[in-house]
Amino acid sequence: MPQPERRYVITFGCPDRTGIVARISSFLAEHGGWIIEAAYHTDPTTNWFFTRQEVRADSLPFGVAELRERFGRIARELGANANWRVTDTGERRRVVLLVSKEGHCLYDLLGRVASHELDVDVSAVIGNHSDLAGITRAHGIPFHHVPFPANDPEGRQAAFAQLRQLVDVHRPHAVVLARFMQILPTELCADWAGRALNIHHSFLPSFVGARPYHQAHGRGVKLVGATCHYVTAELDQGPIIEQDVIRVDHTDSIPDMVRKGRDIEKVVLARGLRWHLEDRVLVHGNQTVIF
Amino acid sequence: MPQPERRYVITFGCPDRTGIVARISSFLAEHGGWIIEAAYHTDPTTNWFFTRQEVRADSLPFGVAELRERFGRIARELGANANWRVTDTGERRRVVLLVSKEGHCLYDLLGRVASHELDVDVSAVIGNHSDLAGITRAHGIPFHHVPFPANDPEGRQAAFAQLRQLVDVHRPHAVVLARFMQILPTELCADWAGRALNIHHSFLPSFVGARPYHQAHGRGVKLVGATCHYVTAELDQGPIIEQDVIRVDHTDSIPDMVRKGRDIEKVVLARGLRWHLEDRVLVHGNQTVIF
Amino acid sequence: MPQPERRYVITFGCPDRTGIVARISSFLAEHGGWIIEAAYHTDPTTNWFFTRQEVRADSLPFGVAELRERFGRIARELGANANWRVTDTGERRRVVLLVSKEGHCLYDLLGRVASHELDVDVSAVIGNHSDLAGITRAHGIPFHHVPFPANDPEGRQAAFAQLRQLVDVHRPHAVVLARFMQILPTELCADWAGRALNIHHSFLPSFVGARPYHQAHGRGVKLVGATCHYVTAELDQGPIIEQDVIRVDHTDSIPDMVRKGRDIEKVVLARGLRWHLEDRVLVHGNQTVIF
Amino acid sequence: MPQPERRYVITFGCPDRTGIVARISSFLAEHGGWIIEAAYHTDPTTNWFFTRQEVRADSLPFGVAELRERFGRIARELGANANWRVTDTGERRRVVLLVSKEGHCLYDLLGRVASHELDVDVSAVIGNHSDLAGITRAHGIPFHHVPFPANDPEGRQAAFAQLRQLVDVHRPHAVVLARFMQILPTELCADWAGRALNIHHSFLPSFVGARPYHQAHGRGVKLVGATCHYVTAELDQGPIIEQDVIRVDHTDSIPDMVRKGRDIEKVVLARGLRWHLEDRVLVHGNQTVIF
Repeated sequence: MPQPERRYVITFGCPDRTGIVARISSFLAEHGGWIIEAAYHTDPTTNWFFTRQEVRADSLPFGVAELRERFGRIARELGANANWRVTDTGERRRVVLLVSKEGHCLYDLLGRVASHELDVDVSAVIGNHSDLAGITRAHGIPFHHVPFPANDPEGRQAAFAQLRQLVDVHRPHAVVLARFMQILPTELCADWAGRALNIHHSFLPSFVGARPYHQAHGRGVKLVGATCHYVTAELDQGPIIEQDVIRVDHTDSIPDMVRKGRDIEKVVLARGLRWHLEDRVLVHGNQTVIF
Repeated sequence: MPQPERRYVITFGCPDRTGIVARISSFLAEHGGWIIEAAYHTDPTTNWFFTRQEVRADSLPFGVAELRERFGRIARELGANANWRVTDTGERRRVVLLVSKEGHCLYDLLGRVASHELDVDVSAVIGNHSDLAGITRAHGIPFHHVPFPANDPEGRQAAFAQLRQLVDVHRPHAVVLARFMQILPTELCADWAGRALNIHHSFLPSFVGARPYHQAHGRGVKLVGATCHYVTAELDQGPIIEQDVIRVDHTDSIPDMVRKGRDIEKVVLARGLRWHLEDRVLVHGNQTVIF
Repeated sequence: MPQPERRYVITFGCPDRTGIVARISSFLAEHGGWIIEAAYHTDPTTNWFFTRQEVRADSLPFGVAELRERFGRIARELGANANWRVTDTGERRRVVLLVSKEGHCLYDLLGRVASHELDVDVSAVIGNHSDLAGITRAHGIPFHHVPFPANDPEGRQAAFAQLRQLVDVHRPHAVVLARFMQILPTELCADWAGRALNIHHSFLPSFVGARPYHQAHGRGVKLVGATCHYVTAELDQGPIIEQDVIRVDHTDSIPDMVRKGRDIEKVVLARGLRWHLEDRVLVHGNQTVIF
Repeated sequence: MPQPERRYVITFGCPDRTGIVARISSFLAEHGGWIIEAAYHTDPTTNWFFTRQEVRADSLPFGVAELRERFGRIARELGANANWRVTDTGERRRVVLLVSKEGHCLYDLLGRVASHELDVDVSAVIGNHSDLAGITRAHGIPFHHVPFPANDPEGRQAAFAQLRQLVDVHRPHAVVLARFMQILPTELCADWAGRALNIHHSFLPSFVGARPYHQAHGRGVKLVGATCHYVTAELDQGPIIEQDVIRVDHTDSIPDMVRKGRDIEKVVLARGLRWHLEDRVLVHGNQTVIF
C-alpha cells in the first residue's frame, strides 16, 4: 500500500463561542496549511466545542514543534487548557499488548499488523500465561511472561510492578488489554489514563464483570456484543470508544455465543485501536467524540 | 394478498428422550397430516425438547377439537404436562393495544393491519391519555380513554380494574403495551401471563426503567436498542422475544436518539407480536425459543 | 416536541484549495454567526471541497436574503458557480407524495408527520390508483387520483401532464415516489432534478427494474435491501442517498421477503427524505455527500 | 475446549410428500438414535423436502458404514436419488487454501485454526505468489508456490494441472479460494463441484468480476459487502452460502472501503466454510438451504 503523506493532527476542545473555527482555520490558512480532513462538533448539553484537523506536513513552513508552540498560544487564548494536542503521523505509533490465554484478539491484531492494515509497531506482548508466546515470536515480536499468582496480594503487586516496567520502557501510544484477564490497579489506570484500551466481551453497560456470555445466555438476549473502552479505575465503566453486536438465537449454546462474540470483539477492538492511534477519539467526561 | 390455507399449529415441550419426533410425526403421518413447517430444538442445558408443527387443516380427517384430544394423549404419554397447545389459524387473532401519548408504535401497527401485512383484528385501543383517539377511530377501531391519576392509589386501582374489564371482554390473544407508560399490577401480570407483550425502549438488560434514552446518552453508548418481552411482575425482566439496535454517535442528542430508537421499537414490536400470534414463541423459564 | 430555533443552512461545493474554511468561517464570525453544526469534506479523487453549515438565524444582524447575497459573493470568489445554497429552516418544507396501491411507505410517512417526527407539510398525495385515498384524507391531506392507462401512450402523456400540474402548483421541496409504479418521463426527471426521490426495493445496483424481490429470491441472496435515490432519466441509476438491508434465509418465501423488505424500504425512505429536506445531501456527479 | 461427542450427520433431499419425517425419525428411533439436532425445510416453489440430522454415534448399535447402507435404502425408497449423505464427525475435515498476495483471509483462517475455533486440518496452502509462505509455515503448514504466467495459455494450463495435483492428493473436504485471484478452468470447477468455496469481495450479484470496491465506489453505494459461494463455471454465479455488509460513507476512499470490506470478507468466509464443513449447506438448483 502506498504510504499516505505525513500529516500533523490537531485535536482541540474548549467552551463553545463564536469565532473558534474562524480563529483556527485562519491560523492554518495564513501559513498555507492544507487541511486534509476537518471535523467539528458542539455538544449542546455541555456547550463544549471539539475539533480535529489533519494538515499536510509539507504545506506548513515549520515543523511539528513550532506548530505546537504556535497553536498552543491560540489554544490558551481560546481557553482550551490541557484539552488540545498536536501529533505527527511521521512518528510511528508504538503499541504494547497484554494477553492471557485466549488468542483471538491477538491473532487478529498481529494479522492486521503483518498485512500492513494497521501500520504500527507492536513493541511487546505481555501475557500472564505463556500460551501465546509462540505466535507472538513467529511475528518477530518479543513476548514476556509475567505470572499473576492467585490469592497472593504481594506477589500480584510485584507482578504489576514488573508489568508496568515492561510496558513503560516502550513509552507506548496504546496499552491494549486484548482479553487480559487481570484487573489493573487504580494507580496503573491513572498513569495510563487515555492510553489503556480494554475490550469487554459484552454490550456495556449490560453484563459488567466476569463471564458476560454466561450472563447473556442466562438472560436470554437476542444479540451479544462487545465494547472497546478506555480503562478507568471503576471496572468496565470507562468512556466507550466503540461497540457492536451480533445476533444469537435459542440454538446458540454458551460456547456458540462465545464463538460468535469473538468476531465482534476482534473488529470492535481493531476499530477502537485504529481510531485511538489516529487521534480520532476525544474524551469528554465519560463520553467520547469519534472524529 | 392470497390467504394461506388454514393450518393447525402444534407447539410442544417435554423432557428430551429418544423417539419423540418419531412419535409425533408418525401420529401425523398416520392420519395423512401434511406438514407445512416443522421445527425442533433441544436445549442441552436443561435437556428440554421443543417442537412446533404446522399442518394443513384439510389434510387431516378430523377437526381441531379432535386433533387436540388425540394429540393431548400423546402429549401426556410424553410427559409434556401443560407445555403443549394446538391452535387453528382459522380463528382470527384478536389484539388489544394499550397506549399513552407517544404514537409511533400505534401508527406503525395500525398501518400494518390496514395494509393486511398483520392480518389480525384490533379489538380496541385503550389509552391513559386521549391523544391517540383520533387516529384509532379513523381506522374504525374503538378507543377507550382510561385516565390513571397520579398519587392516588385507589384511583389507580379503579383504573386498572376498568382497564382489565375493557381488555378481558375481547378475550384477546395478545395485550400489547405499545409504549403504555403504566406499570401493570402483579395480579394483571399473572392473569395475562404469556399474552401481555411490552416494548421497552432499550436493549435490555441495559437501562431498565424510566428514560432509557437519557440513561443511554449519559453512558455514551454507540448503539441504542429496543426489546419486546413478555410482561412479568418484575419490571423489564420478562422473557425476551426480540431485540434490535441502531447505531448512534456523538452528534446524536437525546431527541435524536429517541427518534432513531423509535424505528427500532416499531420493528421489534411488530416482529415480536407477529411471532407471538403465529405461536412461534415458546417460553421456557426466562428464555424463549423462537420457531 | 420543542421547536429547534430557526437556522440558516449553507451548503457549498467548489474545487479544493487552501483557505476556504477560513474564508467562510471568518465571514460568519465577522457577523457574529453562531454555528450550530458544521461539516466539511474533501473528495481526494476529484479534489472537490464540500461544506454544510447551520447558523442560528438570530445570531446574524441580517435576514436570509441578505445572507444569500453576501455569501453569494464569497461563493463566486471561491469558484462555486451554482454549487451553493442558503436555505431557511423557518420556511416550512412542502412535500408531495406519489403512490400506487402499496401503502406501507405512505402509512409510515403519514405516521411520522402526524407524530411530528417529520415536521413537514404533505401538500398532496397523488395515486395512479385510488386505494390509498381513505387513509390520506383521514390525515386531512388532499388525495388526487390520476389513472395511467396501459398501452395508451397519449393517455399516459396526458396523465403525466396532469400529474405535473398537480405537483408543481405546490412548488414542493420534495416529490417522493413512495412506491409509485410509473416511470417518469425524461422531461419530468429533468424538471424535478434534485427534488424527486424514489425508493427502490432492492440494494442497488442489484436487481434494477421490476420485481426485485423475485429476482433476489431467484438468485438466492442472504440479505435483501432498499435504496433511496434521486430520480434521473436512467432507471434506478440516480445518485444514492441511503441504503439498508435485512437478513433473509431459505425459509423466506417471496411474500416473506416482500414483507421483511418493506420494513427496510420505510426507514430508508424516511431517512433519505429527512436528510434531503434538511439540506444534508450534496450531489456530486453520481455520488452523494451526506452531512 | 471440550470435544463434542462424535456424531453422524445425515443430509437428505427429495420431492415432498406426507410421511417423510415419520419414516426417517422412526428409523432412527428404532435403533435408539439420539438426535442432537434436527432441521427440516420444504420449499413450496419446487415442492422439495430437505432435512439434516445429527445423531450421537454412540447411541446407534452400528457404525457409519452400516448407517449409510441402511439409510441408503430409505433414501432410495423416498426417491432421494443422489441427494443424501451420511458423514461422520469423527473423520477430521481436511482443507486446502488457495491464496495470492492479499493475506487477510489467510491470517484470519489460520488464527481460527490455531485457536481451535475451526477444528480442521489445513493440509496445504497454495499461492500463485509466495508472499504468504512465511506465515503459513510459521503455523506448521506446507506452502506451495505455483506461479500462473500471464498471457501464456500453455503455461497457465500446466500451472492448473500442478495446482490440481497438489490439491487432490489431500482429498480435501473443502478447497477454499481465499482471495485467490485466478479463475478456475471449467473442468476444475466440475471436479471440485460442491467443495470449492470462493469469497467474492462484493454483495453479489452487484459488482461481479474485477475490482468490486472500485465499482462500488463509482456507484456511490452506502454499504459494501462480501459473498461466500460455491465455485461454478460461470464467474461469481454459484450458489450463495453467506453474505454480509458494512456501512461506508462519503468519507471512505477506495482504500478505506477495501479495508472495511476485508473485515466482512473474513467473517463471511469463515462462517461459510464452517457451515460447509459441518454439512449444514444443502444446494438445490442455484440456492442453498443453510441448516
